[in-house]
Amino acid sequence: MADQYARTGDDTRPTETPAIRWEEPPEGPVVVLLDQTRLPAEEVELVCTDASTLVEAIRSLAVRGAPLLGIAGAYGVALAAARGFAVEEAAEALAGARPTAVNLSVGVRRAQGAHRAELGRTGDQKLAAGAALAAARALHREDAEASARMAEHGLALLDELLPGGGHRVLTHCNTGALVSGGEGTAFAVALAAHRVGRLRRLWVDETRPLLQGARLTAYEAARNGMAYTLLTDNAAGSLFAAGEVDAVLVGADRIAADGSVANKVGTYPLAVLARYHHVPFIVVAPVTTVDPDTPDGASIEVEQRAGHEVTEITAPQVPVAGAEAGGGIAVAPLGTQAYNPAFDVTPPELVTAIVTEEGAVSPVTAGALAELCGRSRQVTI
Amino acid sequence: MADQYARTGDDTRPTETPAIRWEEPPEGPVVVLLDQTRLPAEEVELVCTDASTLVEAIRSLAVRGAPLLGIAGAYGVALAAARGFAVEEAAEALAGARPTAVNLSVGVRRAQGAHRAELGRTGDQKLAAGAALAAARALHREDAEASARMAEHGLALLDELLPGGGHRVLTHCNTGALVSGGEGTAFAVALAAHRVGRLRRLWVDETRPLLQGARLTAYEAARNGMAYTLLTDNAAGSLFAAGEVDAVLVGADRIAADGSVANKVGTYPLAVLARYHHVPFIVVAPVTTVDPDTPDGASIEVEQRAGHEVTEITAPQVPVAGAEAGGGIAVAPLGTQAYNPAFDVTPPELVTAIVTEEGAVSPVTAGALAELCGRSRQVTI
Repeated sequence: MADQYARTGDDTRPTETPAIRWEEPPEGPVVVLLDQTRLPAEEVELVCTDASTLVEAIRSLAVRGAPLLGIAGAYGVALAAARGFAVEEAAEALAGARPTAVNLSVGVRRAQGAHRAELGRTGDQKLAAGAALAAARALHREDAEASARMAEHGLALLDELLPGGGHRVLTHCNTGALVSGGEGTAFAVALAAHRVGRLRRLWVDETRPLLQGARLTAYEAARNGMAYTLLTDNAAGSLFAAGEVDAVLVGADRIAADGSVANKVGTYPLAVLARYHHVPFIVVAPVTTVDPDTPDGASIEVEQRAGHEVTEITAPQVPVAGAEAGGGIAVAPLGTQAYNPAFDVTPPELVTAIVTEEGAVSPVTAGALAELCGRSRQVTI
Repeated sequence: MADQYARTGDDTRPTETPAIRWEEPPEGPVVVLLDQTRLPAEEVELVCTDASTLVEAIRSLAVRGAPLLGIAGAYGVALAAARGFAVEEAAEALAGARPTAVNLSVGVRRAQGAHRAELGRTGDQKLAAGAALAAARALHREDAEASARMAEHGLALLDELLPGGGHRVLTHCNTGALVSGGEGTAFAVALAAHRVGRLRRLWVDETRPLLQGARLTAYEAARNGMAYTLLTDNAAGSLFAAGEVDAVLVGADRIAADGSVANKVGTYPLAVLARYHHVPFIVVAPVTTVDPDTPDGASIEVEQRAGHEVTEITAPQVPVAGAEAGGGIAVAPLGTQAYNPAFDVTPPELVTAIVTEEGAVSPVTAGALAELCGRSRQVTI
């Protein structure tokens, strides 16, 4: 069951509403999400009292972004455990809510594993629920730390690649505090550059069909006082041709063992443009995004979403029209079929570097990635 | 002064409302436009009784598309002449209404030239007005004929490049009967392939920010019974990567003497993707689109349009919200700056062929283009 309440969102300070938090009101624990489908018009919180509400919030993109999905999945397991629901069932539903971001199932499995282990050891449901919550909180905290380290490594790489400073960075989709326990992935690097006075311009792709760039990245850039300019995804070509882009910074939803990067649809065309124009194309993602069980790009399952996201306009402030399939306003003739993959896959040869909390990999090879992931496991286990 | 009336538009037959027509009601001649900003929701005609209304219709994109702009410009001069307005002033205003499509000023100058010549010869305003109208009508008829010949040459080229048939064609923006006295440019080629059973799929880029692909090309494809699928512009990369695109067909707003092609923003990224994937990239445009006075791509003036086209949703059915700059619904934070070039420029080395009514040029070189334009002048003078 979900409950919603709105806060006025017309101030311009950095948001004080975190993307996700765990609360313990008297009537039992809840997971509170900032409903990202309503941004930037209003900051509405979505209160989830069970895993199925959280599954629905994940599917509807109220909560989204690879690292945050992992945290949400872990809290979802902890919520099911704390409220006495079937934990194994909840974990399956959460892990399968969206197929492409590997972080979601990694987060779910971590809380589920902690729950199982404690239950096996003590047979005590309450202790097991506590272990699941501790695992979720640890993941949340680690993600915030990873975010800060990615920003540090990413900025060092930018400064190395572009010694002149005054970086003009193009980004796609949303990869800031709204997708993370910290300040995000690619956006955190741009923000770090901004803080030291080395970001000249953040070019923000609007990111059709759901406009995460226009709605969310512009919102985060404005709140942080960054110099940013919004553009339609298809106008990026003109910027490259005019020499206005020094680097592309994007996140990732899954990185295959060979270094193929699944990210928001529209990433691959940017990688091709960047290559054609000899501009560095940099992927920023935590090590958990690397999936050693996915050998290559062709093995990545790409989520196909409903066509009405393309054939209708469903901006948060657009009044709902009853007659249409998606509740939006039709912009194409009725009956129009749409091709709507949520992600695309960029092959490693187009990626200049992958930046993680453990450092950067460049050039991107299976061996270098495996070595980095091995290092990470030694650190965290 | 403009007058509007709507027709029900829920039938699925090819439209019987032409994109432009000249009418002679008892109270004086008018130019009647199909208001393209209202499609596909409704077929509303816009009745222009003077050139300034037509200028406004051109600026607001109620009438658009390079060849049709030429016809509209010519009729606008004829209208000013027939109604006794200042013809030279009207011609200047019309020619400058939008800067990038060369056809607009070519059409204006043709009617203006006929008017001047007749006025010089006879001193008779009525005869001069008749000469301007005759010039506009001739341009309109020639454009329809050119369209048919472009379709023929384009289909022959497609069949030559793709001998297997079953063409899967990607197109951008809108280039059909709505931009032409006939069936259009790039769209006319796809339609010709459809009619002989050799079009397997028309991939329709939605074409942000104004969604001409979703609103207009999908509308024309549906009405002609073509197999078509709509996609966000940024999803084209996934189609190329999956080997689902056999050829790209686009129109042009201006072709420089060196073969650089200005066309709707988003065309250049498609050309880069096509090159990276070894897919033919074909430009279809009448010879009048080639501007020998523009030496190269850098000399083409690209129209920069208002940022609110990007920061707000202004689909025809979206209710107008008074507070916003463009009357639409904001999807980005207030105060967001946008980069909104209407066109981009594709260099000749990325263009496989330019198809005109006089035949195809491939490879695209200044010499081959000049030779083609010379041939065209010999024919029409």
